Amino acid sequence: MFVLDARLQQDTVSVGDFSLCRLLLSNDSNYPWFILVPRRPDISEVFQLSSQDQLQLWQETTALSLKLKQLFNADKLNVAALGNVVSQLHMHVIVRFREDAAWPAPVWGKHPAKPYTAAQLSALRERLQQLLTDDFQFAEEFV
Amino acid sequence: MFVLDARLQQDTVSVGDFSLCRLLLSNDSNYPWFILVPRRPDISEVFQLSSQDQLQLWQETTALSLKLKQLFNADKLNVAALGNVVSQLHMHVIVRFREDAAWPAPVWGKHPAKPYTAAQLSALRERLQQLLTDDFQFAEEFV
Repeated sequence: MFVLDARLQQDTVSVGDFSLCRLLLSNDSNYPWFILVPRRPDISEVFQLSSQDQLQLWQETTALSLKLKQLFNADKLNVAALGNVVSQLHMHVIVRFREDAAWPAPVWGKHPAKPYTAAQLSALRERLQQLLTDDFQFAEEFV
Repeated sequence: MFVLDARLQQDTVSVGDFSLCRLLLSNDSNYPWFILVPRRPDISEVFQLSSQDQLQLWQETTALSLKLKQLFNADKLNVAALGNVVSQLHMHVIVRFREDAAWPAPVWGKHPAKPYTAAQLSALRERLQQLLTDDFQFAEEFV
């Protein structure tokens, strides 16, 4: 059975589910920073997924990247599966701007997280609801 | 026409070609750090590739990850398309160990590169020649 890693749960809010992945929002308003977690137990590397799940993960990753690029008018998307600290497979999809806090460095370990306010989360949820229309089930609330 | 970015060329040695991607080795012996570059012009994001090329990129990325995991007995693979500095699309596939210089942090910007010696490169080339047997064309020499 799939159980979200405790560290991921603590550092993010849950947006909802694609057909394979849980979509999380990192609770760090420095960057629009999303995380896709395949809802499969005991997976830490992409190649441990079935071929079908691998394909689905890449499709969800790429489709999300494209939508976020458009929504935020991003300068660059950063897509990464690292997992040195949290071993549960998770794919970062991070919207980057030339003016953001860490540019051009990667975001990890660069600045302390700046949690969103309730109003910011609510506004972001509305934008995401217009973006994620196909094949996505929103969580009842951001938690 | 595809031309390898000058910064990538400077910081790596060319191993050879998969059917889509040029395979580079970062000239930094701190980590077995490989880079896949789709041989397509003017691409900086995965979603700009054709659907067929996207699929091929993911397949080459995942197959390479699995082979490197086995060859190096890796603790973790780090897979990432960042591109904030070099905009030409390139996929990092980095072999990580719990004892490596940057663990558990990501490798970027952590330590100055430690170039390989000619003997190290030659030994590595031999190991890769046993690993990359299907669908891979080795460069005549590491350059």
